[in-house]
Amino acid sequence: MIKVGIVGGTGYTGVELLRLLSQHPQVKITAITSRKEAGMPVSDMYPSLRGRVDLAFTTPDEARLNECDVVFFATPHGVAMAQARELLADGVKIIDLAADFRLKDTAEFERWYGMPHSCPDLLAEAVYGLPELHREAIRKARIVGNPGCYPTSVQLGFAPLLKTPGLVDAAHLIANCASGVSGAGRKAEVHTLLAEASDNFKAYGVKGHRHGPEINQQLRVIAGVAPGSAAVHCVFVPHLIPAIRGIHSTLYARLTPSGQQADLQALFEAHYRDEPFVDVMPAGSAPETRSVRASNFVRIAVHKPAPDLAMVLVVEDNLTKGASGQAVQCMNLMCGLDETTGLLQVPVLP
Amino acid sequence: MIKVGIVGGTGYTGVELLRLLSQHPQVKITAITSRKEAGMPVSDMYPSLRGRVDLAFTTPDEARLNECDVVFFATPHGVAMAQARELLADGVKIIDLAADFRLKDTAEFERWYGMPHSCPDLLAEAVYGLPELHREAIRKARIVGNPGCYPTSVQLGFAPLLKTPGLVDAAHLIANCASGVSGAGRKAEVHTLLAEASDNFKAYGVKGHRHGPEINQQLRVIAGVAPGSAAVHCVFVPHLIPAIRGIHSTLYARLTPSGQQADLQALFEAHYRDEPFVDVMPAGSAPETRSVRASNFVRIAVHKPAPDLAMVLVVEDNLTKGASGQAVQCMNLMCGLDETTGLLQVPVLP
Amino acid sequence: MIKVGIVGGTGYTGVELLRLLSQHPQVKITAITSRKEAGMPVSDMYPSLRGRVDLAFTTPDEARLNECDVVFFATPHGVAMAQARELLADGVKIIDLAADFRLKDTAEFERWYGMPHSCPDLLAEAVYGLPELHREAIRKARIVGNPGCYPTSVQLGFAPLLKTPGLVDAAHLIANCASGVSGAGRKAEVHTLLAEASDNFKAYGVKGHRHGPEINQQLRVIAGVAPGSAAVHCVFVPHLIPAIRGIHSTLYARLTPSGQQADLQALFEAHYRDEPFVDVMPAGSAPETRSVRASNFVRIAVHKPAPDLAMVLVVEDNLTKGASGQAVQCMNLMCGLDETTGLLQVPVLP
Amino acid sequence: MIKVGIVGGTGYTGVELLRLLSQHPQVKITAITSRKEAGMPVSDMYPSLRGRVDLAFTTPDEARLNECDVVFFATPHGVAMAQARELLADGVKIIDLAADFRLKDTAEFERWYGMPHSCPDLLAEAVYGLPELHREAIRKARIVGNPGCYPTSVQLGFAPLLKTPGLVDAAHLIANCASGVSGAGRKAEVHTLLAEASDNFKAYGVKGHRHGPEINQQLRVIAGVAPGSAAVHCVFVPHLIPAIRGIHSTLYARLTPSGQQADLQALFEAHYRDEPFVDVMPAGSAPETRSVRASNFVRIAVHKPAPDLAMVLVVEDNLTKGASGQAVQCMNLMCGLDETTGLLQVPVLP
Repeated sequence: MIKVGIVGGTGYTGVELLRLLSQHPQVKITAITSRKEAGMPVSDMYPSLRGRVDLAFTTPDEARLNECDVVFFATPHGVAMAQARELLADGVKIIDLAADFRLKDTAEFERWYGMPHSCPDLLAEAVYGLPELHREAIRKARIVGNPGCYPTSVQLGFAPLLKTPGLVDAAHLIANCASGVSGAGRKAEVHTLLAEASDNFKAYGVKGHRHGPEINQQLRVIAGVAPGSAAVHCVFVPHLIPAIRGIHSTLYARLTPSGQQADLQALFEAHYRDEPFVDVMPAGSAPETRSVRASNFVRIAVHKPAPDLAMVLVVEDNLTKGASGQAVQCMNLMCGLDETTGLLQVPVLP
Repeated sequence: MIKVGIVGGTGYTGVELLRLLSQHPQVKITAITSRKEAGMPVSDMYPSLRGRVDLAFTTPDEARLNECDVVFFATPHGVAMAQARELLADGVKIIDLAADFRLKDTAEFERWYGMPHSCPDLLAEAVYGLPELHREAIRKARIVGNPGCYPTSVQLGFAPLLKTPGLVDAAHLIANCASGVSGAGRKAEVHTLLAEASDNFKAYGVKGHRHGPEINQQLRVIAGVAPGSAAVHCVFVPHLIPAIRGIHSTLYARLTPSGQQADLQALFEAHYRDEPFVDVMPAGSAPETRSVRASNFVRIAVHKPAPDLAMVLVVEDNLTKGASGQAVQCMNLMCGLDETTGLLQVPVLP
Repeated sequence: MIKVGIVGGTGYTGVELLRLLSQHPQVKITAITSRKEAGMPVSDMYPSLRGRVDLAFTTPDEARLNECDVVFFATPHGVAMAQARELLADGVKIIDLAADFRLKDTAEFERWYGMPHSCPDLLAEAVYGLPELHREAIRKARIVGNPGCYPTSVQLGFAPLLKTPGLVDAAHLIANCASGVSGAGRKAEVHTLLAEASDNFKAYGVKGHRHGPEINQQLRVIAGVAPGSAAVHCVFVPHLIPAIRGIHSTLYARLTPSGQQADLQALFEAHYRDEPFVDVMPAGSAPETRSVRASNFVRIAVHKPAPDLAMVLVVEDNLTKGASGQAVQCMNLMCGLDETTGLLQVPVLP
Repeated sequence: MIKVGIVGGTGYTGVELLRLLSQHPQVKITAITSRKEAGMPVSDMYPSLRGRVDLAFTTPDEARLNECDVVFFATPHGVAMAQARELLADGVKIIDLAADFRLKDTAEFERWYGMPHSCPDLLAEAVYGLPELHREAIRKARIVGNPGCYPTSVQLGFAPLLKTPGLVDAAHLIANCASGVSGAGRKAEVHTLLAEASDNFKAYGVKGHRHGPEINQQLRVIAGVAPGSAAVHCVFVPHLIPAIRGIHSTLYARLTPSGQQADLQALFEAHYRDEPFVDVMPAGSAPETRSVRASNFVRIAVHKPAPDLAMVLVVEDNLTKGASGQAVQCMNLMCGLDETTGLLQVPVLP
């Protein structure tokens, strides 16, 4: 059994980790920390876990995380990088669900997250935890920076187009995305109250969103161009869906003359043929977020709404494939398990 | 024109007052106060008011509330009683949408609201602002304690049964109520986040809710029994609807043998025949909250699900008839206007 | 492996059966029938099942249901009773999720379901499929009438009070219930459109609902009184929650003097101590529907809001414990499996 | 008083017309027709209108529409064109909320609406009822084709960019739009059930949507190019919001070098300076649909998310400015009233 610790499990990525890990056949959760809630049984905060998770929150000191095989950080940004070095020294593998190990450029990190990066060497070592794109590196990683929810869907949607050079005008990509409100986390804020966010729709982060630089960094990796290269650029516009879970990305890429000749459906099907969690839907499909609700699956459909325009529709559950499910997928790889272990729940519909 | 001031207009009862008063043909809003947001244009907080309300929030000092004809308190509990005496001395009429002037028993007030009552003499003078039950007193009032949202629906539903002595076992009333989330106000709290309250249903306040003593106090007034009399007692159980607006009350009263003979439908129709805002629906109806959305109307249906049980269904918009609409209705009475002035908006459906 | 057939799997109880059975370690689904959709892959209708359920809908003729070990009827009322005799003759066990085998009184059945009962002998043999109350009979049953969604919650909530004679005034029970919209099924109807049912709340079935007689029949069984006895009577009032899944029942029972002395919390805890799917929450709790979302669990809290009144709060997922999960629980019992096999999914929250 | 008839008022555009017209100071509704519901009081179908609209549905024959000043068609496509000629002959002005008088190309109409156009001469005469773009023509019109909900928002968003030649690459516009479910009308369909559409998000109409040709026809009119000209082309992708009302359009246009120099904020503010219903928000804003809920307002914000990309965000209420409110606005113009008469309701927020 893999001994797992969770740092900061009071938020939505925490409870989703608990839902998945408590059903994982190879995992034993040994500790879950929260300074603020130390002593409270986890199931008092999340009654959905009554009878299934018998742990109480503990302080980090009591948690003996150094005895774990894997520690997940489901914390605010900045926590993982402060604790990583010590845990690594004790042979613990680390998966950070926050942003500490996503942006490779420390100046970029500081600009978007408002704090200097405290361990650039570990950042350099860390692997970006998107298995469909970095599987082999994840297998060998000691530190994984788990991708952001939006970036996961945007990368998986654009990857087949960018991997083949010359299909699209990669300098002018558009990612028009929408997320359920759980993406904002379990924080007491006015704008995500039901009375504010329900029966409503809006764009947000219009002056710039933290997932923008992450998306652009990784699309450049996918396309094989230099960091910061203007050859690949994506405008990212998030919107808020009056729903709990689900991300829907509508991606646009102008096709080059050769791209206009390509069979995009065949391209996508070939690209994802062997992926257990990526479902390329039949031509003409419009995937809906509920079709992946509470599961680790991603569904993708590719369209040509104009002769020179590719449109890719991608859905994922922001808390599962967009966060905790993906983290468990990485853990499986890092621990030598079958990648799908504990992650094959059928989506909940309706 | 009636010069109106609003103290503390940043919450939902505040913006609802602004929606109604900005369309009221006899009102000029002269000031709206918020210490915290002083200087901010109201329409920056509530874009729905752009172009319609040109005021900015001001500090109470700058607001010159003493020059108003009427001041509404859309504030936390305790604010109105601190400012009432001075305003009254200047001839200003006061309508408090919080609870300072609802509970007549100061010990009860202190128990439920956690603070002593600072002006028992004014409390004694204050009129409970439910026009259908206290119209004449409201006309002459200097201070009105605007009823709670739940109590409004419970009183209007039980009143016809309690006004006729001997129809029901008034000592064992049940009010099974449900409210949209806006009833909790525009406060940053976890339990009313969309991701918590949506796709969910629960009872709350099961150990006792502030509206319980208010309901019982007023049902005793309606029945004409002494304060605290055990002859009238109502168990009140609120539930949270995953919706923005709307209160639905399902009221139960055991019928006495004579009550079992009564024509309840005729009783209710006669009772509310002349009320402009109370609609007794045809026998067999089930009113829905959306049928009064964003309006000052209440719809009521009365049933006998068993030969010895009366069931009354009541719907209202918690922010309108349950709060700000009722406050404007009181203002109309206090200022000698037609009671319905500015309050006849057709409900918004769908 | 248990060979399972599903008749009429196009509705919500059908897709929920598929979700559960496709993850059940001891089940092989061999056929799913729909005359109307014959030939269509199940996953075309329900993309959530893509890659997990490879069957297509077939006509009943092609389905060879007689070769199954168990056949579930997820059909409109009246279908199961027409096909039961033949399947039973072939040794197939039957679980009907519709109402054909719930009401023991055929006149009552005809009155509420508008058709005569075609096999009263099988009805007499059929077992009411609520394992917590009829476990041993279910183990031996050939035909199970799976309980209605509301009746499941009402019975589990009242059972501890009714099993001990003399605690409550059983002749005047009230079940004030509320259900998510999926309870109405996947039928094209105006009143359950999102634009009608969202941001809304109402009672319905106020002139009488089919689950009323079922509740009363079964509460009498629990209390051990004769069918139709006036000693036990429950008024049942359903309401519609603007949510997909979830039933919340608020149950009221007047306590007798001896009931007022009883320790209700201890009574409930003792009653359900060994039940794997019934969770009696700590005193003072208010269970919420999302705490059992997409799971087979029921959570119950018992209160005394007045010295002579018991109030029981019960939550379940109407499609799981209220329908398909309970059906699988019955199947497990009928087939000699551990009752919880394939049913221990952790609820999905948020 | 303007005598108004409504043909086919049982749908959402019908009830919204009734909500607006019953509060319009210059209108008397004389008839509302529905063959299917003839005899039923309107307020039986829509309890929100109880006490406010005393009409019953009548058959078209009894309605004496020819005595009206204005007749609104809130009917399925094809009804208005069948009845228009006769009414016009009697001097009645016609406003069609369906699509009969929107598409100027009869072949295009037949392709998208599946029926030949029965009166091309009237189609040629009909004015496209978007007052902000065709005010003077509407004033003089006998027949108005009221715009589609999506096209209204797309045109108002792109118009300032297209009116000035050379700012954008008009041949490659993208309109990524999302609508609340009421846009699908009050029809019993599975895909708009609450249990299907709630807690979900998806694109739809991905193979082509009827509003696509309407958008392209009208953008060409705005840009002053020939019908069908490839110089202007917009890809239109609608999505379904799990909400009742509201359209949000996110519009993208590539800026030319000269467009990159332009002050887009100033351009939009100047363009709409005198429009009573179009609100250009401050730079950096993200309008939300609820800010115009149940009102005739449109709010617009313009952004440059990349140096060579303009993004315009537009919100409207699909049933008001996107349908019935706009129709009343047209009526006001056609009847010589102030354009805003009866249309200045403050949006309902929260």
